[in-house]
Amino acid sequence: MLQGNILVAQGGGPTAVINQSLVGIVLEARKYASVEHVYGAMHGVTGIVNEDFLDLSQETVENLELVAQTPCSALGSTRDKPDETYCTEIFKTLKAHNIRTFFYIGGNDSSDTLRILANEARTVGYPLRCIHIPKTIDNDLTINDHTPGYPSAAKFVSNAFAGVNLDNRALKGVYVGVVMGRHAGFLTAAAALGRKFEDDGPHLIYVPERTFSMDSFIDDVQRIYNKLGRCVVAISEGIHDADGNLIVAQLAQQMETDAHGNVQLSGSGALADLLTDAIKSKTDINRVRGDTFGYLQRSFLGCVSEVDQREARDAATHGVQFANELERDGSVTIHRTSEYQIEYRLSPLEDVAGKTKVMGDQFISDCATYVTPAFLDYLRPMVGSDMMDPGRLEAPEVKKVLKNKRRLS
Amino acid sequence: MLQGNILVAQGGGPTAVINQSLVGIVLEARKYASVEHVYGAMHGVTGIVNEDFLDLSQETVENLELVAQTPCSALGSTRDKPDETYCTEIFKTLKAHNIRTFFYIGGNDSSDTLRILANEARTVGYPLRCIHIPKTIDNDLTINDHTPGYPSAAKFVSNAFAGVNLDNRALKGVYVGVVMGRHAGFLTAAAALGRKFEDDGPHLIYVPERTFSMDSFIDDVQRIYNKLGRCVVAISEGIHDADGNLIVAQLAQQMETDAHGNVQLSGSGALADLLTDAIKSKTDINRVRGDTFGYLQRSFLGCVSEVDQREARDAATHGVQFANELERDGSVTIHRTSEYQIEYRLSPLEDVAGKTKVMGDQFISDCATYVTPAFLDYLRPMVGSDMMDPGRLEAPEVKKVLKNKRRLS
Repeated sequence: MLQGNILVAQGGGPTAVINQSLVGIVLEARKYASVEHVYGAMHGVTGIVNEDFLDLSQETVENLELVAQTPCSALGSTRDKPDETYCTEIFKTLKAHNIRTFFYIGGNDSSDTLRILANEARTVGYPLRCIHIPKTIDNDLTINDHTPGYPSAAKFVSNAFAGVNLDNRALKGVYVGVVMGRHAGFLTAAAALGRKFEDDGPHLIYVPERTFSMDSFIDDVQRIYNKLGRCVVAISEGIHDADGNLIVAQLAQQMETDAHGNVQLSGSGALADLLTDAIKSKTDINRVRGDTFGYLQRSFLGCVSEVDQREARDAATHGVQFANELERDGSVTIHRTSEYQIEYRLSPLEDVAGKTKVMGDQFISDCATYVTPAFLDYLRPMVGSDMMDPGRLEAPEVKKVLKNKRRLS
Repeated sequence: MLQGNILVAQGGGPTAVINQSLVGIVLEARKYASVEHVYGAMHGVTGIVNEDFLDLSQETVENLELVAQTPCSALGSTRDKPDETYCTEIFKTLKAHNIRTFFYIGGNDSSDTLRILANEARTVGYPLRCIHIPKTIDNDLTINDHTPGYPSAAKFVSNAFAGVNLDNRALKGVYVGVVMGRHAGFLTAAAALGRKFEDDGPHLIYVPERTFSMDSFIDDVQRIYNKLGRCVVAISEGIHDADGNLIVAQLAQQMETDAHGNVQLSGSGALADLLTDAIKSKTDINRVRGDTFGYLQRSFLGCVSEVDQREARDAATHGVQFANELERDGSVTIHRTSEYQIEYRLSPLEDVAGKTKVMGDQFISDCATYVTPAFLDYLRPMVGSDMMDPGRLEAPEVKKVLKNKRRLS
């Protein structure tokens, strides 16, 4: 480890386990004699420019463990993406505080920020070790088998759809649930994990890896409804037409974008409403409901995978060890070596930064509206052991005795 | 207990513990020699007209206990409200199957259905014991201190807001979460339970017990935002203007209503979008997000209060005992006799049927946009013991050393 101070920051959307990674870094880094202080930057790179640091060397283990159990970036987050001027301001602060190792916990935008920063550090001749710790509920980082944050969000989505399936079975109709996922359908696909009985929903799953057609969608819903008298649909916020245009853009007049050029998809019920309105207007189905799961997917208190917690911590701990042992920058990547064994490696930043992994063809059914058993086998070991097992009444029907009885449809 | 068969059914919106009540009735009723069979009607009163019964006498205890742990009406539900003709069809079935005691698990609409049915039974001279078992996430049944289903839904809302508060603290802005509740704000008010630190959200809570003004709302949000740089709002779907017109009706062109004349409020993101659009257009705040919690509040798998589970079971068991011991119809009501002791009574159906309880003035703060400590004292014992305790970093700030540094806002 380079002699000096260590800095840790969190970027992008929060997850249920992002503080496990933070705490993993702090606890591991404090073991090294070459580390003088462990600082935390508030709100990612913004806090570096602003010289807005906490001295995490002074946190107790007890409080750190409480923070580790708490969802959402304890240091605060940012969507800022530094340009050259921004980097210059960052280096002023890093130099002033003798920071020689920087751990940035985040997704592909954050790893790209780190790549830019590492390049600028080399250009200006500032010795800085840059380590990216993976985090994203989207599960869309290349090289990685999966990413910390995804399993807990997947568990939320699975539990949510298992619940709305039961609700929809009790009061029949069509239910459309919109799940986060701009380019990758991993989180939406997790809706299938809670299915138990043959006729359980979700009955249809639409991911951004396939082109969405409104006509086919309506036909699919009508077909399931005709068969079961009900239909539960899981749909990704990132669905788009054959030209790549977002379906939600058909409605949104003012599209809000962040510094990375991403259009705001969450925080609005527009897509669910658009889809339920289409079903209402093009079919005779009279009970049609839609929900947009929104921010609950990444922040809900008390829905977490213990496997995810362990891996988020472990990836960060390995990151500090890599920084100490290997004399290079990089991104900690997660590899599945067997069912279910995980290995951590330090991959080049360039291999992860700004790239997006999407669901492979082996995970999407040929009909394009469901997932394969291979996907469920991939997902199941990550979500932990305490998944609920829903029950159904098994009693026989009572023989009808009345003849010519008026019956309700 | 009247010699013959027993029927149980579930009406209205599902809850996390409605099957605890179902199982409570089945297990208790099977103990009585006078009870020949315990039947379950599929989809409430609809299943009675259709002679659509399961013979619950043949369920194993093991499977019943699995069903009890499963959210949402295992027998299915209905929104149907019987008129005289409908009742006539019901009696045909009850008579044909020698049903002498009917337990209907539901809210104020279901208890009103039971009241109508009990009156018609007397009119036509059909001996029928009618017992209402309380259930509603809205917590709006008169006489009752609270109702089974509410504590678990309140726990969901509390955990959801505790999570989005952390999310909103990490990525600052305004967040509006819309919670179920047509006339009563109990569920929305539960958003306050997860607050721990002084500046935690929700910072504003709007319930249907108070008139909503868009101008005041915008002012309130701006004031909190100016102070904290962020603002989390919990808002009830049932908010209305001074004339009683629903705020969401300003947008909805086609208002869907059920057989009880209720307008559809859930299953659409319209209200959250209306409110976030208003904030965006009338303030300079640039990050404004809104979620509608929708059906997850009443169906999410794995978020349940063990106190709620116990009470839902116990209320039903008492219902069967009342049917056996007392020679009258009624609604099982829940009374708090001390902090925290519960007693079950059999109240007249007329005192509960079709009536709505709203939050008392002692539960709403004078400013009308928050709840009182008395409300939190009322709610806390119901939600169970496993509420999470979020942590925050406590480390001191690092002293800034750079002078005249460019800083970001």
